[in-house]
Amino acid sequence: MATDEELEIAEDSRLGGARSVGLVETQYWTSDEPLDLECGAVLPQITQAYETYGELTPERDNAILIFHALSGDAHVAGYHSPEDRKPGWWDIMVGPNKPFDTNRYFVVCANVLGGCKGSTGPSSIDPETGRPYGLRFPMVTIGDMVRAQARLMDHLGIERLLAVAGGSMGGMLALDWAVRFPERTASVIAIATTARLSAQGIAFNEVGRQAIMADPNWRQGNYYEDGEQPQAGLAIARMIGHITYLSDQQMRAKFGRRLQNRDTLGYEFGTEFQVESYLRYQGNSFVRRFDANSYLYITKAIDYFDLSAGHRSLVEALERVQASFLVISFTSDWLFPTYQSKELVRALQAVGAPVTFLEITSEYGHDAFLLPNEELESAISDFLANVYRRIRGQHGRALSEEAAL
Amino acid sequence: MATDEELEIAEDSRLGGARSVGLVETQYWTSDEPLDLECGAVLPQITQAYETYGELTPERDNAILIFHALSGDAHVAGYHSPEDRKPGWWDIMVGPNKPFDTNRYFVVCANVLGGCKGSTGPSSIDPETGRPYGLRFPMVTIGDMVRAQARLMDHLGIERLLAVAGGSMGGMLALDWAVRFPERTASVIAIATTARLSAQGIAFNEVGRQAIMADPNWRQGNYYEDGEQPQAGLAIARMIGHITYLSDQQMRAKFGRRLQNRDTLGYEFGTEFQVESYLRYQGNSFVRRFDANSYLYITKAIDYFDLSAGHRSLVEALERVQASFLVISFTSDWLFPTYQSKELVRALQAVGAPVTFLEITSEYGHDAFLLPNEELESAISDFLANVYRRIRGQHGRALSEEAAL
Repeated sequence: MATDEELEIAEDSRLGGARSVGLVETQYWTSDEPLDLECGAVLPQITQAYETYGELTPERDNAILIFHALSGDAHVAGYHSPEDRKPGWWDIMVGPNKPFDTNRYFVVCANVLGGCKGSTGPSSIDPETGRPYGLRFPMVTIGDMVRAQARLMDHLGIERLLAVAGGSMGGMLALDWAVRFPERTASVIAIATTARLSAQGIAFNEVGRQAIMADPNWRQGNYYEDGEQPQAGLAIARMIGHITYLSDQQMRAKFGRRLQNRDTLGYEFGTEFQVESYLRYQGNSFVRRFDANSYLYITKAIDYFDLSAGHRSLVEALERVQASFLVISFTSDWLFPTYQSKELVRALQAVGAPVTFLEITSEYGHDAFLLPNEELESAISDFLANVYRRIRGQHGRALSEEAAL
Repeated sequence: MATDEELEIAEDSRLGGARSVGLVETQYWTSDEPLDLECGAVLPQITQAYETYGELTPERDNAILIFHALSGDAHVAGYHSPEDRKPGWWDIMVGPNKPFDTNRYFVVCANVLGGCKGSTGPSSIDPETGRPYGLRFPMVTIGDMVRAQARLMDHLGIERLLAVAGGSMGGMLALDWAVRFPERTASVIAIATTARLSAQGIAFNEVGRQAIMADPNWRQGNYYEDGEQPQAGLAIARMIGHITYLSDQQMRAKFGRRLQNRDTLGYEFGTEFQVESYLRYQGNSFVRRFDANSYLYITKAIDYFDLSAGHRSLVEALERVQASFLVISFTSDWLFPTYQSKELVRALQAVGAPVTFLEITSEYGHDAFLLPNEELESAISDFLANVYRRIRGQHGRALSEEAAL
């Protein structure tokens, strides 16, 4: 028989131990104020799913907004129930004494507009018809997602963020936030991202969308009420995506030409190589947790993303930023290669923004930002500590000056 | 009114001018001798479509066998009719005074086994049932394709080839030929290829196949008699392939984020960006000229390709080669990157095979081997001239020695 203490330790360890945020709950907030979208349409009301970790200081100066990537959600860290087998998607980074240290910072993450994890998206009920939006859902942009989350920050009473942070699409939201709300942003952590999606990125997204829309179950997006999710198409889209998230060298190391559960070639169209088995597994497990229409809308938002749009240049677009920047790329990331981060860094330098750039050597491709990496962890940890120290110093001075009056 | 001479010049120019092989005809040869395949199945008879250019010398020492890539065919050069708008797929390389100089060499190219351009493949009639094979067609390998073409060479009376040559999958056939028939191969030109397909390569092929097999029109491959070609699935497979044939830098230069026939974003799922339009065009035009089942079979053959299979190493596999090698890669080819060519070159050096390796700087990605490139052209031209000079020299000596007896 295990003692109570042993059980407690086991429980604690299963929930991630002392460095885990432990049990967390997704919260929902609905704003009935219509949101004007960039495409010209209006969303009459928006619900946003979000989670928070840590405590907001009385000065409200320690809030960090983390943005998730294409297939992510509000559940960054911790567990939803003691039975949960997996923690949130960035649990390695968010928790007590982790880089986004919940002992010091108040961390928020919200599911993006257009998503399918609790925020208003194509699978939500259209209040005008009482039925799921489907393709009647208006096209949303990274900027629309950001403006929706700004409202959530208002609701939470957070005027200025210590940091906005994200990888991949999350990095796009962070950059957009910094440009859109300069006075609300003390710092930006942009990882494995870009200031504008490349033609190759658009191409991969487009083929994924074509695969979904070619699935007869898609039915112009009307599959929610009396149909089935276009699983085959969505799985193919996910498989394409997955190849772009890994690196060639990593795939060689991880799979090579090894066969799956067999010693000799089968000469058949079933799974023969391990890499095929891996991809099929990724595709099939994705369709159980993600909505095909959300995949269409979010990839379009990513395609549209161009920080310089409406400006003569990226430099001009960045002219008003007031934040410090930490820009991180990975050597083997070919979806958002280092040259794209450097483009951003050069533009930030041109406007005189404080920017730290780090190219981390990794063989894990684009997905490297989601994996344990000491260099990544200490870079974020140190950057946040420095920004927070500076801000607290300013507060300290402001308070002293007030006292002196 | 144009004079006869002017008309003749116009005609000549339209057909590619003095450096064109002009009008050519595809020929067909059927072997009734059963072909044992690597998978264990037997093809009772095989037909091969092929074209020839130039003249075979009385010594039969100037024959070059060119192998096509995944979507190619026997029609390498020239025109099938005066109305033809486009010449063969490697017309820039094959013709009078071109690198594969048809004034000097006798060039042959055959459609691969499993293909859909005249050689026996899944769309051919199964003599046992009198109906198209469909998935009853046995799995074929690069080695099977090569052995079929060896029979064709026998039929044409060509014992030893001056050169076997090909890019991409064509390069795989050339390498396989050199290992399988050392005594029949004076030289090998292997361009933008590899000694074994990488995990990433298998992954892209697999997703393409999944897209085809997910198309309800595919019907387990039985769409020939009373159905429609699985166009949507095949188009998606082709679009995926096309992204891998281009380079990131080339896509940036060629398309960037430019919109197609519009000035502002449309916020719709139709074509908005030029790169989307390009991909859709590539996908849609491909389905008109290619069979979906052939795409499945040929990509599987590519996946299976591993020159070292059955040997302890690539070096061991190459031990018996007698040919000289020209290995060429392109800097921006990320589907068959330079490191893969280098792997091959090192193994060839280890067995003491004469090998020239050239990495050509190009921004055109994998497709660079199909595009005009002076460095590529002169490398092939010089290599062939040297090999031919050496062989003729040997002939010369052999003839002198005979005369001396």
